[in-house]
Amino acid sequence: MDRVKTFIQGFDEAIGGGVPKGHVVLVCGSPGTMKTSVAFSILYNNVKAGSKGLYISLEENHDDLKGAMEDLGMKGIENMELYILDVSKIRLEHKDEELNKNWLDIVTKYIEQRVKVNKFDLVAIDSLAGLYSLNKLENPRRELFHFFGFLRSLDATTFLVSEIPSGNGTRLSMYDEDFLSDGVLLLQMFDKGETDVQLRLRCVKMRRTKHDQGYYPLVRNNGQFQITRAVSG
Amino acid sequence: MDRVKTFIQGFDEAIGGGVPKGHVVLVCGSPGTMKTSVAFSILYNNVKAGSKGLYISLEENHDDLKGAMEDLGMKGIENMELYILDVSKIRLEHKDEELNKNWLDIVTKYIEQRVKVNKFDLVAIDSLAGLYSLNKLENPRRELFHFFGFLRSLDATTFLVSEIPSGNGTRLSMYDEDFLSDGVLLLQMFDKGETDVQLRLRCVKMRRTKHDQGYYPLVRNNGQFQITRAVSG
Amino acid sequence: MDRVKTFIQGFDEAIGGGVPKGHVVLVCGSPGTMKTSVAFSILYNNVKAGSKGLYISLEENHDDLKGAMEDLGMKGIENMELYILDVSKIRLEHKDEELNKNWLDIVTKYIEQRVKVNKFDLVAIDSLAGLYSLNKLENPRRELFHFFGFLRSLDATTFLVSEIPSGNGTRLSMYDEDFLSDGVLLLQMFDKGETDVQLRLRCVKMRRTKHDQGYYPLVRNNGQFQITRAVSG
Amino acid sequence: MDRVKTFIQGFDEAIGGGVPKGHVVLVCGSPGTMKTSVAFSILYNNVKAGSKGLYISLEENHDDLKGAMEDLGMKGIENMELYILDVSKIRLEHKDEELNKNWLDIVTKYIEQRVKVNKFDLVAIDSLAGLYSLNKLENPRRELFHFFGFLRSLDATTFLVSEIPSGNGTRLSMYDEDFLSDGVLLLQMFDKGETDVQLRLRCVKMRRTKHDQGYYPLVRNNGQFQITRAVSG
Amino acid sequence: MDRVKTFIQGFDEAIGGGVPKGHVVLVCGSPGTMKTSVAFSILYNNVKAGSKGLYISLEENHDDLKGAMEDLGMKGIENMELYILDVSKIRLEHKDEELNKNWLDIVTKYIEQRVKVNKFDLVAIDSLAGLYSLNKLENPRRELFHFFGFLRSLDATTFLVSEIPSGNGTRLSMYDEDFLSDGVLLLQMFDKGETDVQLRLRCVKMRRTKHDQGYYPLVRNNGQFQITRAVSG
Amino acid sequence: MDRVKTFIQGFDEAIGGGVPKGHVVLVCGSPGTMKTSVAFSILYNNVKAGSKGLYISLEENHDDLKGAMEDLGMKGIENMELYILDVSKIRLEHKDEELNKNWLDIVTKYIEQRVKVNKFDLVAIDSLAGLYSLNKLENPRRELFHFFGFLRSLDATTFLVSEIPSGNGTRLSMYDEDFLSDGVLLLQMFDKGETDVQLRLRCVKMRRTKHDQGYYPLVRNNGQFQITRAVSG
Repeated sequence: MDRVKTFIQGFDEAIGGGVPKGHVVLVCGSPGTMKTSVAFSILYNNVKAGSKGLYISLEENHDDLKGAMEDLGMKGIENMELYILDVSKIRLEHKDEELNKNWLDIVTKYIEQRVKVNKFDLVAIDSLAGLYSLNKLENPRRELFHFFGFLRSLDATTFLVSEIPSGNGTRLSMYDEDFLSDGVLLLQMFDKGETDVQLRLRCVKMRRTKHDQGYYPLVRNNGQFQITRAVSG
Repeated sequence: MDRVKTFIQGFDEAIGGGVPKGHVVLVCGSPGTMKTSVAFSILYNNVKAGSKGLYISLEENHDDLKGAMEDLGMKGIENMELYILDVSKIRLEHKDEELNKNWLDIVTKYIEQRVKVNKFDLVAIDSLAGLYSLNKLENPRRELFHFFGFLRSLDATTFLVSEIPSGNGTRLSMYDEDFLSDGVLLLQMFDKGETDVQLRLRCVKMRRTKHDQGYYPLVRNNGQFQITRAVSG
Repeated sequence: MDRVKTFIQGFDEAIGGGVPKGHVVLVCGSPGTMKTSVAFSILYNNVKAGSKGLYISLEENHDDLKGAMEDLGMKGIENMELYILDVSKIRLEHKDEELNKNWLDIVTKYIEQRVKVNKFDLVAIDSLAGLYSLNKLENPRRELFHFFGFLRSLDATTFLVSEIPSGNGTRLSMYDEDFLSDGVLLLQMFDKGETDVQLRLRCVKMRRTKHDQGYYPLVRNNGQFQITRAVSG
Repeated sequence: MDRVKTFIQGFDEAIGGGVPKGHVVLVCGSPGTMKTSVAFSILYNNVKAGSKGLYISLEENHDDLKGAMEDLGMKGIENMELYILDVSKIRLEHKDEELNKNWLDIVTKYIEQRVKVNKFDLVAIDSLAGLYSLNKLENPRRELFHFFGFLRSLDATTFLVSEIPSGNGTRLSMYDEDFLSDGVLLLQMFDKGETDVQLRLRCVKMRRTKHDQGYYPLVRNNGQFQITRAVSG
Repeated sequence: MDRVKTFIQGFDEAIGGGVPKGHVVLVCGSPGTMKTSVAFSILYNNVKAGSKGLYISLEENHDDLKGAMEDLGMKGIENMELYILDVSKIRLEHKDEELNKNWLDIVTKYIEQRVKVNKFDLVAIDSLAGLYSLNKLENPRRELFHFFGFLRSLDATTFLVSEIPSGNGTRLSMYDEDFLSDGVLLLQMFDKGETDVQLRLRCVKMRRTKHDQGYYPLVRNNGQFQITRAVSG
Repeated sequence: MDRVKTFIQGFDEAIGGGVPKGHVVLVCGSPGTMKTSVAFSILYNNVKAGSKGLYISLEENHDDLKGAMEDLGMKGIENMELYILDVSKIRLEHKDEELNKNWLDIVTKYIEQRVKVNKFDLVAIDSLAGLYSLNKLENPRRELFHFFGFLRSLDATTFLVSEIPSGNGTRLSMYDEDFLSDGVLLLQMFDKGETDVQLRLRCVKMRRTKHDQGYYPLVRNNGQFQITRAVSG
């Protein structure tokens, strides 16, 4: 089975070599857990290795996102096959028309066309909550079933950034998208002693993959994410 | 009493030799706890031993499901008396008609006919939440009483995959289906030390069975599920 | 005061010799805690000792229930003065009429007549949640006050099986029936060590009875329920 | 200040000699904590000492209540100035008229007249939840303000039995009646070791009284309630 | 800056000498935590030192309140410039008109006039929940903003007794009045060992004041509140 | 990248030198955690260093706020380029018109114009809850997306004071503004031993910044906020 590497050093081994091609994967975490950075870096590193990526930003604008990624050491984005769609800009420029449009449809059709025409094989949507704020979902579970079905029908692997409110126990998503997704990567902050905290990465679910379920401390060193403990078993 | 083996090594002894024939059994767990794999493997192993199985997938498509099961070592599915009904495909192809149909009725009638005609003696529905997303239940407890009554009236043993949201305490189902079912198998992830987790299986309920109620670590080795501790008492 | 023995070995002493005649007693527990077995065995053993019992099953059918009880060692039910009313069968056969009937009234009148005509002195209803699923209660507290008043007006002792959802803290009932009842027997599963669980019985409330309130480990040995620790003080 | 003794041995000293005359006091506890017994025994012992008591039972009938109290050693109730009003009987006999009446008004007027005519100086209402089930309160806080004001205007001391659902944390009442009352006596079951429980009494609030706030183990010995630890400080 | 002493021995030092003049301060606590006594004693001691105080009692009547305060050693209230407005009496006498009046407006205008005419420089309202039971607030945050603004516009310092339901975690108020207030004094009962409890006072918030945030055990000795541990730092 | 210093001694190093210019940053905390003081002091110290600041106070009036800040050692505010907009005063003076106005629009336009005309490069809004009490948000997530977008479009760095109710677990905001913001500074009170508490500051999120996520004890000494532990790693 073909797999998309996360390029998080040490982690691909924990998930059988990477994310199976064609999967729809949630990247979950509360604010400040580097969800965007992790999702973007997966696309960035794969594009460097020959893929074509489409990053759809719903709430952060193009320049801020690009700047933030460059700060983390991801250089040369403008010369790569990594296209950032700034929906946030479109929204701010068309605030008044916003209510009249079915944005979920627009985004869906846009993705469909771009993947077909431009041969993107990696898509990221940042974030699901941003997407939901565009349209009121009448029957979330049914509409999301079709949206996930659409994503799975693409000839691409998809990463969905999913924001978990702080203090929301261990829920992983707003509408139980974790049931519908093929994989779930969870980023979580843990208290260490009285005053320190530590970021950890866990693969909660990955269909078609024999994966470790434990927590891995995650750091970024020399422009690379890496986990800092050996994969067990 | 005739019993359907789970073929989870070591576990059948913990539940009196297997699941009593004709039972309706929940297979519960949060995302990433191998509910689908456990339910499918029960059908797979029984079909290998001479049964006929119908696996109804509401949200994962046929090829992904089959591929995932093959990855786990279940080979030759296409040549066995194990039929996978891909409701997900039907839904995606008939998205627009979806709202006009009473899917619960359609699924019910489909199962009824196939069990009668094809003599399936094992049925699995994956998942209940997927089933509920097709129709809004007006009075869940009454409608589910009749649905469970229908399943029990079949000449088959039924496994219902039930998704428990992460972080939902110890609730086992959405509409207390655990009251209506004849048995409840619970899959649960436990933290082990600071960074490890361990999957465990527990038989919470099994009518007509003197069963152990403890937790059993569950692993998959050499293409077989097995529990890794001796059954007590 | 006349008392109805529970025939749970060692437990009758803990509740002053048994349940006072005429009481309405809840038998509460989450799924898999043997509520049905405990309630049925109280009727079974009393009928063997000369009583007449009416067991009303709302959700499990006659044969399954009888078979399950036989598995537990309760033999010869068909030749005893222990009548099982299979409301579940009536419901499944009259699904379409179900909505037009006031089932709470029907059940009430049925019990009233049978107790009068057949001289049943023990009645069990399994379960309250099943009963409530038949009718929507407009003002639960008032309607249940009258239902409990009706039961108390009978010349019989009544046991009501009450299902507590897993994970619902320590609530004992859906509409605070524990206030209205004369007694509350609670069945609860406790974790023992990391992987074991233990079933315990507790008499939470028993009017007109000086009873111990502690927890008693409950087992079934040689066809008899028994508690496994001495009653304190 | 004149005080009404509780006649719970050792406890009156903990609350400055007793409950100040004219107070409206809650007796709170979950099922099985002897609320009724404590409230009734306060009236019983005071009537023996020369008072006149009115006990209003909303849900338990006269004979059951009287029998239960006799079991606890309170003899000769029928020959004392302790009148039990069996509202439960009236309700069961007039079920159909129930909805047309303003029962809160009826109870209020009944109490007013009896206290005036019969010179009752002690009133108990068992229970508040039973009272509320008779009428839907539109604005609970306002209606209860007036009900408590009415009780305080009587030339009597009042005890209100307040049922706390099991598992409801530490809430003491349904509509925050603990704010409106002059005193709160709390009965609570505590786990002792792995299997034992212990009943304790605590005076949470008592206006015009310098009282201890600790928990006192409560037992009934030789027909008398008593606390089993010395009052501190 | 002028400050109003609390006259709680040892505590004024913990809050920079007292409550800044003109502040609106919440006195919060669950039932039985002496909120009324603390608020009243602040007015009483200041009036003895030359201030003029208005105590508005919404739910406890004049005589009960006065008697309770005398019990605590606050003598001679009737000869002091400390006026108790018994809104509870007005309400009970005008029950039928209650619904037609805007009581929040009436109370507001009454306070305004009395402060202007009688030169009260200290006002207490006991309690906020009592005030809210008079009127339904349409938009609590906005209406309370204006009510707090009105109180702050007075030439007086105000104390608002705020009742926290038992078991309500650590919420300090019903409509987040703690945001709008200038200061928050919290009275809380702590378990000490298995059976004792201890009352503690904490200054959660005090604008324009460098205050300690710790908990202070609070007792009443010789007619005076005092804290029993030294102020740290 | 240009950064706005917080001037909290020791803390700017923990967040890469300060807050990136143009960011919209939440300053979160429950009552009594010095949110206002921290936000104001950031503006004050930057204005002293040459910036121009606009502080918008929704609920505390100009004089109280200014006085409180002077108490903390921030002198000479009236002679600085630090303008305090007292919306609270405007609201109190125009109470009756309040309902007819779209205050969110008014505040938005006011800020826009002042930033353009007066070249403010620092804006603070105290507080978000105060802002929301002016207008009912129909679709909070969408309206706030545009409000945050507007703030980000300004040529200024913005600090938003966000009030977290006590006892609200670890939620950081009312409408998940922490997702929309570029940074989150959290002020939190911790129990230290049995009676002490300690204020701590944590940078939960800061886009475009490699920041420490641990908790730092925060004190105010000699008119300066400072953290009292070394920044780790």
